[in-house]
Amino acid sequence: MLQRKDLLGLEELGADEIRMILDTAGAMREVIRRDIKKVPTLRGKVVATLFYEPSTRTRFSFELAAKHLSADTISVAAATSSVAKGEGLVDTAKTIDALGADAVVLRHPAAGAAAVFGRYTRAAVINAGDGMHEHPTQALLDLYTIQEQKGRIEGLTVTFVGDIQHSRVVRSNIWGLKKLGATVRVCGPRTLLPPGLEEIGVAVFTRLEDALPGSDVVYVLRLQRERFAQGLLPGVEEYARLYGITRERLALAKPEAIVMHPGPLNRGVEISAAVADSGRAVITQQVTNGVAVRMACLYLLIRRENDDKAYH
Amino acid sequence: MLQRKDLLGLEELGADEIRMILDTAGAMREVIRRDIKKVPTLRGKVVATLFYEPSTRTRFSFELAAKHLSADTISVAAATSSVAKGEGLVDTAKTIDALGADAVVLRHPAAGAAAVFGRYTRAAVINAGDGMHEHPTQALLDLYTIQEQKGRIEGLTVTFVGDIQHSRVVRSNIWGLKKLGATVRVCGPRTLLPPGLEEIGVAVFTRLEDALPGSDVVYVLRLQRERFAQGLLPGVEEYARLYGITRERLALAKPEAIVMHPGPLNRGVEISAAVADSGRAVITQQVTNGVAVRMACLYLLIRRENDDKAYH
Amino acid sequence: MLQRKDLLGLEELGADEIRMILDTAGAMREVIRRDIKKVPTLRGKVVATLFYEPSTRTRFSFELAAKHLSADTISVAAATSSVAKGEGLVDTAKTIDALGADAVVLRHPAAGAAAVFGRYTRAAVINAGDGMHEHPTQALLDLYTIQEQKGRIEGLTVTFVGDIQHSRVVRSNIWGLKKLGATVRVCGPRTLLPPGLEEIGVAVFTRLEDALPGSDVVYVLRLQRERFAQGLLPGVEEYARLYGITRERLALAKPEAIVMHPGPLNRGVEISAAVADSGRAVITQQVTNGVAVRMACLYLLIRRENDDKAYH
Repeated sequence: MLQRKDLLGLEELGADEIRMILDTAGAMREVIRRDIKKVPTLRGKVVATLFYEPSTRTRFSFELAAKHLSADTISVAAATSSVAKGEGLVDTAKTIDALGADAVVLRHPAAGAAAVFGRYTRAAVINAGDGMHEHPTQALLDLYTIQEQKGRIEGLTVTFVGDIQHSRVVRSNIWGLKKLGATVRVCGPRTLLPPGLEEIGVAVFTRLEDALPGSDVVYVLRLQRERFAQGLLPGVEEYARLYGITRERLALAKPEAIVMHPGPLNRGVEISAAVADSGRAVITQQVTNGVAVRMACLYLLIRRENDDKAYH
Repeated sequence: MLQRKDLLGLEELGADEIRMILDTAGAMREVIRRDIKKVPTLRGKVVATLFYEPSTRTRFSFELAAKHLSADTISVAAATSSVAKGEGLVDTAKTIDALGADAVVLRHPAAGAAAVFGRYTRAAVINAGDGMHEHPTQALLDLYTIQEQKGRIEGLTVTFVGDIQHSRVVRSNIWGLKKLGATVRVCGPRTLLPPGLEEIGVAVFTRLEDALPGSDVVYVLRLQRERFAQGLLPGVEEYARLYGITRERLALAKPEAIVMHPGPLNRGVEISAAVADSGRAVITQQVTNGVAVRMACLYLLIRRENDDKAYH
Repeated sequence: MLQRKDLLGLEELGADEIRMILDTAGAMREVIRRDIKKVPTLRGKVVATLFYEPSTRTRFSFELAAKHLSADTISVAAATSSVAKGEGLVDTAKTIDALGADAVVLRHPAAGAAAVFGRYTRAAVINAGDGMHEHPTQALLDLYTIQEQKGRIEGLTVTFVGDIQHSRVVRSNIWGLKKLGATVRVCGPRTLLPPGLEEIGVAVFTRLEDALPGSDVVYVLRLQRERFAQGLLPGVEEYARLYGITRERLALAKPEAIVMHPGPLNRGVEISAAVADSGRAVITQQVTNGVAVRMACLYLLIRRENDDKAYH
């Protein structure tokens, strides 16, 4: 079992903890694969999903994971939540605590929101994205998928392409990949590259021709359209021309390189349809593995030992 | 069991398939009537409702049907879905597939959306309304209700009144009624009548005085207020005067004729309160039967044989 | 069992009925405390939450209560409901009835909405707030919390502070507290005090210095920001200065007085952070007790004897 109450990010996790989650996810993957689907492990437990930003796939994935473990789920979307009434995060956390949820899956636009929330509730808090900070379960499902597809993580070269600066997915992946012994590269337009990456051992590129050779994994990031409005990018065609991953571009990477994407896709922008639909892309595998990884996280955090805590 | 993966419309169903669904719905109706309510038939299965247009009653009805069969439900509303992020329908279908839903109930403003969706997921797709095209479970519950109330469908005359052109309910019902041997009439203002109906054997009228005599079923359509803004109708009072179903108008139909409506009602517009609240109206029976029909559809599509499919 | 179908308000309940609910809530509290959490009492029953106004905590609390009793829940939010389509409350009630829900939890901006709704459905209707009229489960959880904290209700003095006029929480509490033998005071700016309270035996004050001495319970109301826009209040600082409950103000009440608040809090406005976070505040206990009280209400209304009613 994890010796922590909350899952806030991969920066704080040890390599052994990450491996424990991936191993547990492997067992959960078997439960899904055999179509057992419903195990009574978390029966009677309540998982609340609290999303201050919209997301179909992440919320759906967590709810499905909870249901496979027989937990009940309660979903609170930002539009209908007390956010409208201006309640602070601390009081919402206290309320969720008093209501008796066993786990809270929180997505919030502010970096650090999950950490604050976790301090004010006895429920396990899983960060499902806090601003530009971390999105740990996304990185864990990425690690799981890389290991599944490549047989290992150590020694691989993983290259992230696109809007590095605003990506919590990249941030969480960098921590996880480095801890498990992978080499990390990032590549994107200069306006979308944050400072300080070289200092933590990440190789930084602005041209795909330099970044892709030798890559085992090409991780394509979703391009947020608002970057154009913000003047950070010249135009969508220009971006696609310079950074879109096409068959030709992919040929620069290792012959057996796989392509990953956190979804949803902008086909024809950051990734061509031909690549997205090819056998090199493991995007749907990421989605399927995401359910198993979230089952593992819920299981490890809402652990049986937790039962005798003085809840009320 | 149905020999098809998806339920997209009644145009493609054979009369035998329609009868199988109605018979199965009869058995499901018994489950509800006896207040057993919860049978374990679909335990561990996941039904996702994906609504790109709002609807209380249809979504509620499907969710209730799924719960009666012990399936888990996950609900995605348009406002909170990836639609906001501009993800294409194909990629959403692939994602739902990868997440592992067993059935998807889809409502979408574009005709053909459910068919496209179904091609990209192994899940059973039930069309809960695709633009002005079809709404098969509505027509199936209408057929069930007619048979329940009249003892048969063959040889009956069913007259639809109102906005024929924009109605997927009419379109699905025409296919179903014709296949089961009923005579179909439609009546509405000329601006709301589509071309080509006579060619498929539907009698077209513009005056209720001509359309109602001899009718066994008067099926009143909901008037969408936007038709006035579009200039397709003169005004609400004018419409009510010419096409509203009142006691006097209803007297033109057969003495034992029943009145149906897909809901929600505009009382005093397309139907008078006196008719809606009379014993002639079987509107609440339609709603109750809708749950049984949807239980039948979910059961027949997510069939046990499906279990050994290579899901993951 | 309660000898009524709906729970509309405390005005209509007898003292014995209130006590029965509080006693049952005590038993439910044990279920939660022991972490049993899931009892099969309402298995197969369907609880629909129908919220025409947003609310995280009330809806969440009811859904949690239903799940603890193994009931299924279906949630309809105003934004996605037929409200958008302009369906009347009566037809919505008839539809919910026909769909076969066993209980409906209704929040609606119009006073009397729950009563109207209840007349058109065989389902048990629980009023979760109808305009400025009543919010009975809030008052019941308040009564439960007072009894839990003080050992009794009879003979206590309970003082409500804030926007008395627009508060359904106060209205329901006045009925409940009077019936159980408590003394009720209210205190607020003259513009937010309704007429006629003295006539039903409530002492009315405009200065905290007059209202607080002798109080066993100080019940702080949430200040709605729209009151300022409506010109009913001078400004937020002025309000906080005159009516905000601070440590100094609280010292005017009895030494062992407790502080209650229905949430969500405006810290620094109607209540200081120091008071809200002190041991005197029992705000989180109110939230926890709310789940038990709602379990009791659902249990008592969807009672076993109900099963043989002719539902369909």
